[in-house]
Amino acid sequence: MEHANLDFDRQNRTGFPEVIFCEGKPDEFLVDIYKKMYDRDGQVFGTRATEHQYNIVNTILPDASYDKISRILKVAPKDGRSQELIGNIAVVTAGTADIPVAEEAAQTAEYFGSKVTRVFDVGVSGIHRLLANTDALNQANCVVAVAGMEGALASVVGGLVRVPVIAVPTSVGYGANLGGLSALLTMINSCANGISVVNIDNGYGAGYIATQINRLAER
Amino acid sequence: MEHANLDFDRQNRTGFPEVIFCEGKPDEFLVDIYKKMYDRDGQVFGTRATEHQYNIVNTILPDASYDKISRILKVAPKDGRSQELIGNIAVVTAGTADIPVAEEAAQTAEYFGSKVTRVFDVGVSGIHRLLANTDALNQANCVVAVAGMEGALASVVGGLVRVPVIAVPTSVGYGANLGGLSALLTMINSCANGISVVNIDNGYGAGYIATQINRLAER
Amino acid sequence: MEHANLDFDRQNRTGFPEVIFCEGKPDEFLVDIYKKMYDRDGQVFGTRATEHQYNIVNTILPDASYDKISRILKVAPKDGRSQELIGNIAVVTAGTADIPVAEEAAQTAEYFGSKVTRVFDVGVSGIHRLLANTDALNQANCVVAVAGMEGALASVVGGLVRVPVIAVPTSVGYGANLGGLSALLTMINSCANGISVVNIDNGYGAGYIATQINRLAER
Amino acid sequence: MEHANLDFDRQNRTGFPEVIFCEGKPDEFLVDIYKKMYDRDGQVFGTRATEHQYNIVNTILPDASYDKISRILKVAPKDGRSQELIGNIAVVTAGTADIPVAEEAAQTAEYFGSKVTRVFDVGVSGIHRLLANTDALNQANCVVAVAGMEGALASVVGGLVRVPVIAVPTSVGYGANLGGLSALLTMINSCANGISVVNIDNGYGAGYIATQINRLAER
Amino acid sequence: MEHANLDFDRQNRTGFPEVIFCEGKPDEFLVDIYKKMYDRDGQVFGTRATEHQYNIVNTILPDASYDKISRILKVAPKDGRSQELIGNIAVVTAGTADIPVAEEAAQTAEYFGSKVTRVFDVGVSGIHRLLANTDALNQANCVVAVAGMEGALASVVGGLVRVPVIAVPTSVGYGANLGGLSALLTMINSCANGISVVNIDNGYGAGYIATQINRLAER
Amino acid sequence: MEHANLDFDRQNRTGFPEVIFCEGKPDEFLVDIYKKMYDRDGQVFGTRATEHQYNIVNTILPDASYDKISRILKVAPKDGRSQELIGNIAVVTAGTADIPVAEEAAQTAEYFGSKVTRVFDVGVSGIHRLLANTDALNQANCVVAVAGMEGALASVVGGLVRVPVIAVPTSVGYGANLGGLSALLTMINSCANGISVVNIDNGYGAGYIATQINRLAER
Amino acid sequence: MEHANLDFDRQNRTGFPEVIFCEGKPDEFLVDIYKKMYDRDGQVFGTRATEHQYNIVNTILPDASYDKISRILKVAPKDGRSQELIGNIAVVTAGTADIPVAEEAAQTAEYFGSKVTRVFDVGVSGIHRLLANTDALNQANCVVAVAGMEGALASVVGGLVRVPVIAVPTSVGYGANLGGLSALLTMINSCANGISVVNIDNGYGAGYIATQINRLAER
Amino acid sequence: MEHANLDFDRQNRTGFPEVIFCEGKPDEFLVDIYKKMYDRDGQVFGTRATEHQYNIVNTILPDASYDKISRILKVAPKDGRSQELIGNIAVVTAGTADIPVAEEAAQTAEYFGSKVTRVFDVGVSGIHRLLANTDALNQANCVVAVAGMEGALASVVGGLVRVPVIAVPTSVGYGANLGGLSALLTMINSCANGISVVNIDNGYGAGYIATQINRLAER
Repeated sequence: MEHANLDFDRQNRTGFPEVIFCEGKPDEFLVDIYKKMYDRDGQVFGTRATEHQYNIVNTILPDASYDKISRILKVAPKDGRSQELIGNIAVVTAGTADIPVAEEAAQTAEYFGSKVTRVFDVGVSGIHRLLANTDALNQANCVVAVAGMEGALASVVGGLVRVPVIAVPTSVGYGANLGGLSALLTMINSCANGISVVNIDNGYGAGYIATQINRLAER
Repeated sequence: MEHANLDFDRQNRTGFPEVIFCEGKPDEFLVDIYKKMYDRDGQVFGTRATEHQYNIVNTILPDASYDKISRILKVAPKDGRSQELIGNIAVVTAGTADIPVAEEAAQTAEYFGSKVTRVFDVGVSGIHRLLANTDALNQANCVVAVAGMEGALASVVGGLVRVPVIAVPTSVGYGANLGGLSALLTMINSCANGISVVNIDNGYGAGYIATQINRLAER
Repeated sequence: MEHANLDFDRQNRTGFPEVIFCEGKPDEFLVDIYKKMYDRDGQVFGTRATEHQYNIVNTILPDASYDKISRILKVAPKDGRSQELIGNIAVVTAGTADIPVAEEAAQTAEYFGSKVTRVFDVGVSGIHRLLANTDALNQANCVVAVAGMEGALASVVGGLVRVPVIAVPTSVGYGANLGGLSALLTMINSCANGISVVNIDNGYGAGYIATQINRLAER
Repeated sequence: MEHANLDFDRQNRTGFPEVIFCEGKPDEFLVDIYKKMYDRDGQVFGTRATEHQYNIVNTILPDASYDKISRILKVAPKDGRSQELIGNIAVVTAGTADIPVAEEAAQTAEYFGSKVTRVFDVGVSGIHRLLANTDALNQANCVVAVAGMEGALASVVGGLVRVPVIAVPTSVGYGANLGGLSALLTMINSCANGISVVNIDNGYGAGYIATQINRLAER
Repeated sequence: MEHANLDFDRQNRTGFPEVIFCEGKPDEFLVDIYKKMYDRDGQVFGTRATEHQYNIVNTILPDASYDKISRILKVAPKDGRSQELIGNIAVVTAGTADIPVAEEAAQTAEYFGSKVTRVFDVGVSGIHRLLANTDALNQANCVVAVAGMEGALASVVGGLVRVPVIAVPTSVGYGANLGGLSALLTMINSCANGISVVNIDNGYGAGYIATQINRLAER
Repeated sequence: MEHANLDFDRQNRTGFPEVIFCEGKPDEFLVDIYKKMYDRDGQVFGTRATEHQYNIVNTILPDASYDKISRILKVAPKDGRSQELIGNIAVVTAGTADIPVAEEAAQTAEYFGSKVTRVFDVGVSGIHRLLANTDALNQANCVVAVAGMEGALASVVGGLVRVPVIAVPTSVGYGANLGGLSALLTMINSCANGISVVNIDNGYGAGYIATQINRLAER
Repeated sequence: MEHANLDFDRQNRTGFPEVIFCEGKPDEFLVDIYKKMYDRDGQVFGTRATEHQYNIVNTILPDASYDKISRILKVAPKDGRSQELIGNIAVVTAGTADIPVAEEAAQTAEYFGSKVTRVFDVGVSGIHRLLANTDALNQANCVVAVAGMEGALASVVGGLVRVPVIAVPTSVGYGANLGGLSALLTMINSCANGISVVNIDNGYGAGYIATQINRLAER
Repeated sequence: MEHANLDFDRQNRTGFPEVIFCEGKPDEFLVDIYKKMYDRDGQVFGTRATEHQYNIVNTILPDASYDKISRILKVAPKDGRSQELIGNIAVVTAGTADIPVAEEAAQTAEYFGSKVTRVFDVGVSGIHRLLANTDALNQANCVVAVAGMEGALASVVGGLVRVPVIAVPTSVGYGANLGGLSALLTMINSCANGISVVNIDNGYGAGYIATQINRLAER
């Protein structure tokens, strides 16, 4: 039984390499996939990794590095290939607790070649903190708005900027937050224009779309 | 069979007279209740009335008046008793479509003796409209925040004022607004402090609570 | 009582004029708003209008026109100002029944100055119809994917193109489609990258975001 | 990366200091925030803390104290500043299991300067226990009603008193209690007037609003 | 095609005759079933009938009678067979709007031979009205508690009596009442003992079970 | 704009012709599609049609026929091509009200060439009616079990037969039936083996799958 | 702070002693309550206890006994008071996994003085096992039907017997069983008469009601 | 108390032996059931077993074997009875993470005598991987389509093949996947024909139905 069917054509077809969703992958499968992709591409990028997963991948790929906040487990290219970051994506969070998801978005965008501006902990209960950053947001090609609890941040940002807002609901909160579903509904029903939504805690997806838009803007 | 069991003690116990929820009441029941309460109290106040209900009540109580926006059907006291309004309640809406619910709240509060300041159509997608009214909100003893769609208004208001915010989700919106449930969840999960929530479209309930608070502040 | 608080600054702030959501607006309010906006801007654009609303607006603004499929009610500029459409947005539907929402998206994008390519009735149950249009999709700056029932179209499109996909779930379907919520969940959980989602039946929102992206790509 | 954006203006704007939601905060972040706030204000108040969090905060702030029931972790002012409690807030629970949430509400209100009357374990299945406390409830400026399972307590209290009732649904219960959502729905749909609702288990929020009302009543 | 498969054995097996659920039955089917059952049994009992259905049944069975409140459409036995009612079932409602469901329960129980005591409009927002009827409830073999909105009535009744309480949630209410689901959840999660629940608006089902219990108590 | 993209290859690919879902199709579209398909194939089959739709189709295709119960609107082949029905599919319903969905399933299967045995109104509350038909069910290649309300029929049938059971939940019921979702959940969670489920009221889908199985069994 | 408000009047008012819901009670509270109730009554009965709770209670009340299956932790009367069991309650389960809930019901009923007949593992997927027990069911005054997964057992039982059926949904199952909510919905929507429902896994509640009915039947 | 009521007649009635659902069974019960069934049949097949359960069963039945991926715990017949596999069932997965459920389906079908073709990791985000396997799918008598996240695989497969598709939603995913409910809804609402659905993660059920169909096709 062959467990994985690598999509060799993906880079050509979509302009992006394959990325590994580490969560829940059995150890043997994970190590095997990291190994195969590294052999093919000379670099690997995985999301939602645990420290344990970092340890086992590190054993066979000593160049692997792990970021505890974003939970990204990556192997940078051996030969020091470097990339100049282009354009500008603003990543905004409502609270401190939303930072892990925001960092997943930001580091994904950076891995794919985008420059990122971080604006954290500017939730709507103290609206002046967000308004003080209006100019920073307006200089970006795209805004990623990350918020849990009631998720109102996206609507206010949407009313302040000219560019698309990718809204990321997070599971931060308790009680009737329904594991992030309440924030998702808030963002889907936004009265502001220019807002589209990805899955709960899906920082990776937001970083990917923001990069697509950033590339179009900078081409 | 006796269909209604009037609560004669309510005014003494709670400080508020009985009010009629007109929606869905059969014609005979409705007319009978308006009649009985008018005979007892010399005035009647009903919510969620239709024009048809106004017409049938008007036949037997010619002093009845009806407001199409708020759907309030009331009979003012015959002898011209008048009431001086006290304190200050701010009623704020996100959009034009939320006005019927807001008017139900405002007119309820006025009927119960409160002065009301209306601030309409100041939703968060154009945040400057709300900020321009910060002073007006801060002069009130209580703010009623009425919003449909994603209901983000309550959170922003909550972060701007010192007084309690009664949040009223409305059924305004479509698709994933779930008939107002999405706005309700937003408000219940608010990251701002000082916000409590009533049922969807329950302008009456908000006007009642706002009056309780207004009376406490003005006693 | 002033029912509407027009957002005069919106064009400057966001690059888009105000648009009217006609559904549920009382006749007097609607006519008044069309009148005011026409006086200010010389043109008006409204969505989700009924034929009745067209008739009453037409009485005072004889240049108003109405499209039954998209339900857009607009007043074109009197002086024949014309606009050259730029870039390219592909609007794709799964079925025939999704066309009204797709046309709302397409005509919104055109009103805002974007060129649109329509690819209709290419749902995944006959996948060859979609694959035959892969080239057309890849020539666009952005794809709007409109689908009801199970909404699988967005995932397949997402795997075929380099550009962002704005997914629009529709309320088309029956039974466990939950008024479009099932399609929305499908799109939010998509295994493909590059997909973000707007509210059920929100063609307008998709046309708006697609235009933001199209403008960035063409600037 | 700066993880927290302290809201220095909050006390001026809202009349309340910032409070820390401890749940889920990484150790380093938490200690850092307690330190910064203590340096600025000479006192700190946090909710939903674990014993582990108490231990690490205690290491650097030896005056920190922790209450196991309410899970409040606070640092009292060094210089013995004391506060005279004003007014009266009644905190009522349906059962013994609701006491942790009730204590969060009560101790929050006390921290913010309110006098509190506790009335615990008076659920509606033995209604005489509640009725025996009617006078105590009527002497308060505000009642906080805390209940899990079916949450009926709020409705009965609402019918007995003149003052606002802040209803707090709790996650106490099992099966179809849906983690507290059933109690929340009960309270939102209450047939009694004067009831507004906060999030499930949100004792802090109720204590905050009760204090707002208590201050208005006592000013 | 034979549309109905009458259950001739039901009276023997369960002690109850078949009853017709009229709602949604096509006219021809309905008339046919009434005719067949009348020919077999000399009497027929149907629930949730419309006036139209009464009219068409009345044409062929002139002894048919219809009660507008309970919506019961029945044909009494021609030969004047009469039944002595036994025992005692109390049917209690929270509000006036719950009376149609309560009457369905009460008239069903009477049709099946039970004596019924009606106690209407004694909802928990004015708890003294219910307490004034405690003795009446305690004289019954079973209590049927009918309530919409938040459905708290059942819990309070459950704490007052020795006998089983059959709780009937009704669809009365609005907003977050979810068509009666909120009341159903309240009743299912009741903190009081002795409460079991039937479907929303299922007065018939409650009258049936109450009769089963009443018969056991009186045998 | 071309509204429909007919799938000319479908018969070759899947062994079944295209079928029209009539519900909600605008008149012009519907007539146009019936016309085109009739011109191509000499016959047409549509589901969920209204009488109005029959009338307008009948105007241009005088051989169209309509069945009020199943709501199938079809045009039989002009030249009297006839089809010998093969195999055996049992279609079973819990109640009389489920017959429209059952007939949609049965007539679909017949249109696709399957012989059908109907067993109606054998719901589990009178289990002997179902048991009396055990032999009939066991002679079929496949059973379609159609039930609303609690949908328990499928589980009992599943325990009695050797062949696959296609379970069709219906929207028949009220209150907590959630428009058929409760029956769907019952069937999905069945403790019996051999049961798979289609959408609520999806008689057509069940008839299609039953035919696939019947053909495999009879080839 | 007094954590518990014992209901001394309960036995007089309802005919049943107080019972302790052990789940989630802090150790000190639990031991204290067992002690107080034992001192007052000479016996104690608690449900949903863990082995740990048994151990700590046993330390101070050496006569305490614990049943691992039902999770009942009780202290029998010291003086050997014994009770003659009356009447007959049948407790039926669909599967083996439902036995813990069934035993909670059965042992509760026995503690309250009822004779119990157990009929286990007779789920509807092998209907002959249930039918073989029809006589046993018909000799009871009440049937408690315990089932998880799709919960169809209650409907079939309801169609076979003359006496009330108390349906207990269990959380047994996986996937779309929604923690027992699917079984609850099945039972609430039952097509059979005579079925009322208690909370998921609420064996205690069912045993209580069954005893109420059994007592009425045997008085 | 006898905990299990073995269904001796099942093989005769349904053509399949009894199978053990191991999850959650207490150790003693599990060992006892394996022992009894082995004594009766000389072989046993159980699903959702843990390694711990394997170890305890292995102690008394040394021939027991366990597959970690599918979690199947079986005891093969001692006497080397072997079975020739018939027909062809295709088991397809969207991703690597869906393989455990797919293997449960495949190994169940093989245990019941079916030949199985595995096609893994061919999700719709790289549609060419699935299209490359169209011929393999078309050679099967039945396709089992296993997918988590948005579950779109089933719809695309349904449009490519002539035979029934058994769709198995999995709990793979996060956020708004609702534990697999989103994939289930996708599959139930599929726009493609020939798709029926089993419970979330129910590989066993799909393997059972696929075998029923495979046997019918090969008889």
